[in-house]
Amino acid sequence: MRIAQIAPLFESVPPLRYGGTERVVHWLTESLVTMGHDVTLFAAGDSRTSARLVPMRDSAARFVRNFEVNNAPYARMIELVRRAAAEFDVLHFHIDFHPFSVFTRQSTPFLTTLHGRLDQDWVQNVYSLFPTAPLVSISNNQRTPAPALPFAATILHGMPEHLLKPIPAEQTYFAFLGRISPEKGIVDAIRIARACGVKLKIAAKIGEEDLPFHEEVVAPLLDGPHVEFIGEIDDSHKSAFLSGAKALLFPIAWPEPFGLVMIEAMACGCPVIAFRRGSVPEVIEDGRTGFIVDTVEQAIAAAARLPTLNRAAVRQRFEERWTARRMAEDYVALYQRLIAEKVQHE
Amino acid sequence: MRIAQIAPLFESVPPLRYGGTERVVHWLTESLVTMGHDVTLFAAGDSRTSARLVPMRDSAARFVRNFEVNNAPYARMIELVRRAAAEFDVLHFHIDFHPFSVFTRQSTPFLTTLHGRLDQDWVQNVYSLFPTAPLVSISNNQRTPAPALPFAATILHGMPEHLLKPIPAEQTYFAFLGRISPEKGIVDAIRIARACGVKLKIAAKIGEEDLPFHEEVVAPLLDGPHVEFIGEIDDSHKSAFLSGAKALLFPIAWPEPFGLVMIEAMACGCPVIAFRRGSVPEVIEDGRTGFIVDTVEQAIAAAARLPTLNRAAVRQRFEERWTARRMAEDYVALYQRLIAEKVQHE
Repeated sequence: MRIAQIAPLFESVPPLRYGGTERVVHWLTESLVTMGHDVTLFAAGDSRTSARLVPMRDSAARFVRNFEVNNAPYARMIELVRRAAAEFDVLHFHIDFHPFSVFTRQSTPFLTTLHGRLDQDWVQNVYSLFPTAPLVSISNNQRTPAPALPFAATILHGMPEHLLKPIPAEQTYFAFLGRISPEKGIVDAIRIARACGVKLKIAAKIGEEDLPFHEEVVAPLLDGPHVEFIGEIDDSHKSAFLSGAKALLFPIAWPEPFGLVMIEAMACGCPVIAFRRGSVPEVIEDGRTGFIVDTVEQAIAAAARLPTLNRAAVRQRFEERWTARRMAEDYVALYQRLIAEKVQHE
Repeated sequence: MRIAQIAPLFESVPPLRYGGTERVVHWLTESLVTMGHDVTLFAAGDSRTSARLVPMRDSAARFVRNFEVNNAPYARMIELVRRAAAEFDVLHFHIDFHPFSVFTRQSTPFLTTLHGRLDQDWVQNVYSLFPTAPLVSISNNQRTPAPALPFAATILHGMPEHLLKPIPAEQTYFAFLGRISPEKGIVDAIRIARACGVKLKIAAKIGEEDLPFHEEVVAPLLDGPHVEFIGEIDDSHKSAFLSGAKALLFPIAWPEPFGLVMIEAMACGCPVIAFRRGSVPEVIEDGRTGFIVDTVEQAIAAAARLPTLNRAAVRQRFEERWTARRMAEDYVALYQRLIAEKVQHE
């Protein structure tokens, strides 16, 4: 199948550091290539891929305080993808509503995976204009604020089977992985670990916008022996970090549409203690790959039951449910369905 | 003629305070209505117009640190204008390259007035993709960095004939009007006024991004008797402000594509001492409506020659060359040409 993947341009594919969407686009693209498909990736020029790369700007560039400068590479991408559309069997966009006015008026089947939250007003205002533009939700929970949008499927993320793996280690701490921010639940993670008498290791990015929160709220709670901040880590350090953890703490305070760190933990056999929000009930199997709880107190109680979980079984569930190959197969099935529906309509 | 005006959405039309593009769109729209055309304005919902207003968002909202939130109203606008396109004889866009992928693929004649500078890399990268999308430059100088783009005309701005007018007054100071920023030349304006022994009155906005510049560079130069900062003023105060000024100082440090304050000054009979940059030589007639100079020293020398200029003649040149009616007539002539070319091609 001739497939175009159209990625955001604020990060390369894969991203150099933090960037969930670009990681998923990378893993999907690589899996599709491995499966024998003819894949073209429209992305920033510093992307690395086994697919054919069509560079849309020299290199990824961060959001700036200028409407036109942010938008110009996207306008250029929309036009170049449109001109090439007839060369593909399907166009898979990861850039929200940007393609719709153009691609609802041409004939190559296309779809858009929504990677973000859908509870803002403007979501309904824009997406509802396009009832014929098929959307993919990354969890069923993501659809909650906007159930009437034209969702064609929910396809849960997956990651490469061998990117992270269990490493023999003694589990001596709880892990927090991701980003320092109120919605990621770092303060509750610290409370849970302290109450359990277990050390918390925090591997996290501190974004510019979260710096005040970090300095005012989080930094005072850090103390070397009990709560240790080790900074942002990349994939090469995650297997060791998660293999040495009794559990990943994921006490999120927002309806995160998909939490990649949960499947990263499972890939290392590390169970997850997570708050029942967003995608959590669709990702974690309570009592099997972790515990789903509603409060800090329940999380503390769940921690006592961690020895009842089998880390090898956690890894096995990862292999069964959370690989990029499974995700890619789900997408290919959807591509085929959309192509068939298009043929039927013609 | 059935004309659609499509305005930016970060400000209402007209803008509540500062906002050159939205002021020009307002003046053009009102003039076209007065001339008997059937005009529809696609703009923020808090706009005020004699045309039919199609609100694109409840009210104008400033740029935010979120790509999707900034873009959603524009995506919605592009789609709604596209659906209504057949109801118009011509579509006149003021939102840069955003319409091109959609409107180069439909049949209603359209044009885009470029209101900003064209010397950034991304300008060529995007605009050069669309050789059939007619552009209007707001001065010939604006084209300099990108002469090969498909310009259909240069149409200089104009403003309503009776919005500002000369008010009998003694001229006791030099005026600076606009925005505090390095590129607007405020420091040179202060140097010129000091050297001439003439008081400088500064009526200017201080933008958030220019606050450090103001505090570090400009504020120390302010002293009540000789250099007075009177804050941002609206149109109702400009006639008095400019009528009492010996001259407007416009020592810009950047190639401003069009400086509206120059024609505001002329409307009040106030001559302009301006640096030879950007649109200045196309707007000021040296020795008639002001003096065009290259240096601070030349500006000081020119100030001595101000008594040779006739303020009534300055106002008369404004009426001949710089009214919104003249601008609207120029646009209507271009609309007619584009419509005729379209018919010829069909």
